[in-house]
Amino acid sequence: MQEQFIIRPNPDDPRLTRRVDGIDHAGRPITTSVTVERPLTLFLNGREIVTMMTIGDYPEYLALGYLLNQNMIRDGERVRAVEYDPDIDTVVVRTDGETSFEEKLKKKTLTSGCAQGTVFGDMMEKFETVTLPEGHVVKTSWLSALVKKINTAPSLYLQAGAIHGCALCQEDRPLLYMEDVGRHNAVDKIAGYMFRHGVDGGDKIFYTTGRLTSEMVIKTVQMGIPILVSRSGFTAWGVDLARQVGLTLLGRARGRRFVALSGQQRIIFDDVPSEDTAASTHDARAGRRDER
Amino acid sequence: MQEQFIIRPNPDDPRLTRRVDGIDHAGRPITTSVTVERPLTLFLNGREIVTMMTIGDYPEYLALGYLLNQNMIRDGERVRAVEYDPDIDTVVVRTDGETSFEEKLKKKTLTSGCAQGTVFGDMMEKFETVTLPEGHVVKTSWLSALVKKINTAPSLYLQAGAIHGCALCQEDRPLLYMEDVGRHNAVDKIAGYMFRHGVDGGDKIFYTTGRLTSEMVIKTVQMGIPILVSRSGFTAWGVDLARQVGLTLLGRARGRRFVALSGQQRIIFDDVPSEDTAASTHDARAGRRDER
Repeated sequence: MQEQFIIRPNPDDPRLTRRVDGIDHAGRPITTSVTVERPLTLFLNGREIVTMMTIGDYPEYLALGYLLNQNMIRDGERVRAVEYDPDIDTVVVRTDGETSFEEKLKKKTLTSGCAQGTVFGDMMEKFETVTLPEGHVVKTSWLSALVKKINTAPSLYLQAGAIHGCALCQEDRPLLYMEDVGRHNAVDKIAGYMFRHGVDGGDKIFYTTGRLTSEMVIKTVQMGIPILVSRSGFTAWGVDLARQVGLTLLGRARGRRFVALSGQQRIIFDDVPSEDTAASTHDARAGRRDER
Repeated sequence: MQEQFIIRPNPDDPRLTRRVDGIDHAGRPITTSVTVERPLTLFLNGREIVTMMTIGDYPEYLALGYLLNQNMIRDGERVRAVEYDPDIDTVVVRTDGETSFEEKLKKKTLTSGCAQGTVFGDMMEKFETVTLPEGHVVKTSWLSALVKKINTAPSLYLQAGAIHGCALCQEDRPLLYMEDVGRHNAVDKIAGYMFRHGVDGGDKIFYTTGRLTSEMVIKTVQMGIPILVSRSGFTAWGVDLARQVGLTLLGRARGRRFVALSGQQRIIFDDVPSEDTAASTHDARAGRRDER
């Protein structure tokens, strides 16, 4: 695809924000925008699974992506219907498979992830069977372009705060940029879109504003994406999991700077600022440098 | 209490971070710190409740606070034991009450909160019965002092990123400053400490780095604290809930600036920068101003 921003946040959608009156630090009256979150109850094959809070822009993608990322829909299991009823804030997903609920609900781990931070035992199982494609690369010139395009795109974050975002990208183009009050909602919406439209993750880059936790790494791998980039920091388990499957993991990505702690082999350094080249004598002598 | 920082993060605790090798944006080798998260499985009266990921510094406070904030321990229910076993990453809490698990697990809502973002039906019930004390105030001079002290305290955030923090404060003094990979862990650890040591929330201020979601408001109210301050933004439901119980809600608190959307009556403006006074003719004429 040569397109860009097939999906991007629409901060002008009146359902997503609300104007509220208050006062500022000097006691002066002001009116400001706040993010609206609404409940969404998810049913799978007749069973109530969970109610999650979301900004409510893509309930069908959220429902599908949640089920996929929690490994509640198996590979090959066919989705027959995804029905959103706005009057009762509900999405019903029907598949032709059998779902072993009791097994899945038995081991619930609340991870450090935002929003639905649950890791079912199955997620780890699936994680261990996934192989990421090796052939694709990420050029540093693409990264700085992506970071800039995403950061300057109109977004609810800029408008009202209180929101997390992530984007599925190809080379230097953001393709799908989703936001939500919970970071995992944003990831799941992208997963749902990819599943619904048959988008392959193998030649893509995943960008998130959120931290590179174990859960973020697991979801990225499940989505078949070999490169994960974040503006924020790492956790040790996230790094370990990334290394286990050879995911390329870049964190603290701001402007042209980043730190890579896994999968360095996919990175092509085509955009190094002259003051940062390895030929710079100061750094060459310093050898291993300490970074924050 | 006239003390300050009774508890504060200890970034030098070797168990909380790990040194990892990687490369930077110029391909140069670096060594950096990442946050270590470990699982903690919580049992209440013999039943396994949940496994959560945490940095692991205060497992007993986390366990107690989690149970309190999920309303799984009733007022007046006595806690007989809190036993942490580091070898199996487990905390067992024993009380003398009966716990109606089935009721509680029936209605599980995953909110937008980080980490254990679950809102049991009971939480809302309890929320509706709470009354916050009216007599305490928050001076704007305290706020800027608090923000500064918290932001400059040594912390894992500054050291390794990937961490959320919150602090229980009194006037211009942070008393307990907790961090964790999940924001709700940090809140729960403070709740656990307050319960264990009989600390009253009525004359305190709660500061968080995280967003002012519905769940954050609910927990603050449950902890009996009438003033909640965040560096980040609001959600509409969080504002509605705050107004429902008269919680003083300040967001986007940076330096001396903030926006207050609820409970304005508790705020004393003793520290307004001269260029921001209401007497400034430009603003007086503008009347209602638009803020981000």
